[in-house]
Amino acid sequence: MANTRAYAATSPTSGMAPYSFDRRALRPDDVAIEIDYCGVCHSDLHTVENDWGGSQYPVVPGHEIIGRVTAVGQDVTRYQPGDLVGVGCMVDSCRTCSACDSGLEQYCIEGSTMTYGSLDRHDGTVTHGGYSENIVVSDRFVVRVPENLDPASAAPLLCAGITTYSPLKHFKVGKGHKVGVLGMGGLGHMGVKLAKAMGAEVTIFTRSESKVAEAKKQGADHVIISTDKAQMKAAADSFDFLLDTIPVAHDLNPYLKCLKYDGTHILVGLLTPVEPALQAGLLVTKRRVVAGSLIGGMPETQEMLDFCAEHNITCDVEMLDIRNINEAYERLKKSDVKYRFVIDMDTLKQG
Amino acid sequence: MANTRAYAATSPTSGMAPYSFDRRALRPDDVAIEIDYCGVCHSDLHTVENDWGGSQYPVVPGHEIIGRVTAVGQDVTRYQPGDLVGVGCMVDSCRTCSACDSGLEQYCIEGSTMTYGSLDRHDGTVTHGGYSENIVVSDRFVVRVPENLDPASAAPLLCAGITTYSPLKHFKVGKGHKVGVLGMGGLGHMGVKLAKAMGAEVTIFTRSESKVAEAKKQGADHVIISTDKAQMKAAADSFDFLLDTIPVAHDLNPYLKCLKYDGTHILVGLLTPVEPALQAGLLVTKRRVVAGSLIGGMPETQEMLDFCAEHNITCDVEMLDIRNINEAYERLKKSDVKYRFVIDMDTLKQG
Repeated sequence: MANTRAYAATSPTSGMAPYSFDRRALRPDDVAIEIDYCGVCHSDLHTVENDWGGSQYPVVPGHEIIGRVTAVGQDVTRYQPGDLVGVGCMVDSCRTCSACDSGLEQYCIEGSTMTYGSLDRHDGTVTHGGYSENIVVSDRFVVRVPENLDPASAAPLLCAGITTYSPLKHFKVGKGHKVGVLGMGGLGHMGVKLAKAMGAEVTIFTRSESKVAEAKKQGADHVIISTDKAQMKAAADSFDFLLDTIPVAHDLNPYLKCLKYDGTHILVGLLTPVEPALQAGLLVTKRRVVAGSLIGGMPETQEMLDFCAEHNITCDVEMLDIRNINEAYERLKKSDVKYRFVIDMDTLKQG
Repeated sequence: MANTRAYAATSPTSGMAPYSFDRRALRPDDVAIEIDYCGVCHSDLHTVENDWGGSQYPVVPGHEIIGRVTAVGQDVTRYQPGDLVGVGCMVDSCRTCSACDSGLEQYCIEGSTMTYGSLDRHDGTVTHGGYSENIVVSDRFVVRVPENLDPASAAPLLCAGITTYSPLKHFKVGKGHKVGVLGMGGLGHMGVKLAKAMGAEVTIFTRSESKVAEAKKQGADHVIISTDKAQMKAAADSFDFLLDTIPVAHDLNPYLKCLKYDGTHILVGLLTPVEPALQAGLLVTKRRVVAGSLIGGMPETQEMLDFCAEHNITCDVEMLDIRNINEAYERLKKSDVKYRFVIDMDTLKQG
């Protein structure tokens, strides 16, 4: 599949520019997908600018991919040309470890192969993501997108959606639970929608009074201004779960105090040290838990899409012409998007 | 019940000395107990020296109490004079909140009444613990001690035992699990015995080669020298649970790396900040959990004693003459005891 047009960064400071490369020929279990839409995740920007180290240039980002199947390998039975499908953060894993056996490919003991910037397990080439015309992915890592979902606004479900759905499901959030959502970006606003659909009473924690109306619009039952000590004190010992989507270091202790005994604080955004230091006593004296969670496995990703179709849940998106990707990144740095940019891949063909 | 002889501290620096006070007259639900043995917990020392602040002098410590019932209030049906019973860290709670309703009195929403240094909920007096001839406790907070347990070495089960039993039970430790125990003091050595009895494969983590023989003697299947980087690296991703009994600030990150995905690091010793900072990425990328746990509820405390009776588990103790309590405290500061001092209360009568 020669001459695939894409956008790529060739260095941490190059910005994104048109780029062409060859997608691999179909392996027996491969699905070829013509990409219609690709969400823009903050991880894309971190990788492009090598914030986490280890980026392999050229970087073709994008792991919130929706498109139509154009061809399948000889062993593929689940998909056929014309199917509406999605690809998320992973495109491969060892497939034999206990995690993979349990459908938890994201915790693959050998490490899963990410959609971009990883080394392909078979030919050692660097994987390239969804800012491109098409992609070739093993069928295990392809999910079916229900036709009643708007495909453009469904694209971010493949990362923002599953990242919030998976821990809510794993920790058994449901009716009767009080859930707090920390942070109101791409992940946070999905967390609100999903927790509400699961039957929970949802509170958004935000630092600023100016976001209250928006929080209510997102469906939150309540809003707590986290910088208001009186409001935080009144919330003490009252939450079953906190879904923490804040991506930068922040003080967990005031939030931990808001958890009931046996309450769980779930980190999905923070990847850096917990600073200031966690007060161990806040965990010990109430059997509280701090847990992490990473995206979700493939069976769970399919389940999440089906759940979203059933509950008519998609992401709030702003459509993007790929030729404006560098400006979009600048706006992303200022959190100036409600709540996810999605690239209309038709604009690539015009570029 | 006038003129109860005891040992007390009258200031943070006074040390322990003979002291007399009046135990309350029996309320309808009270059980009067003549104390035979009382374990010496590190918390006793912290409270005596006001390390945590808020100590109310005089302090009569002791919350690992075993003795015989001498009298019961008019409403008490579960106990009668002569019964061998125990009292642990709590002597009261609100009894009406959701935690109390679930037999989790240690997480009482209003805060439980501790065996010493708390204010009695009825008369506002300061509670006095087990370094004394007798104690009067509401029957809900009294447990039955199986007669086949050696009462002296069973005393520390009321704190060290339940503190380690409760999280192992709550987090469902059992056959097929790999459990690491961090720290090998009063709590740690109980954790090894209990986790082994629950069917787990148990590894002791210790900083020093010199403790390997002792760790094996305690029944550990394996020993890892936590200061040996090669050993720690070899242990990566291999434990289901870590029971962390280390009471002082320490780096959790090298231990977190030893947990499998979905593994749980349980804090029962640490009450101060987690320093150096926790690496959130170690939780997120493997859905690992850091949890706290505090002693145990009353039904679970009874269950623990019955479990210990069934498996013939007691604490390793060194018997202590109460007149030597100040020297024992000095040795405690140097962790110079295997693994718990237990006061023989007969020595109080001789004092």
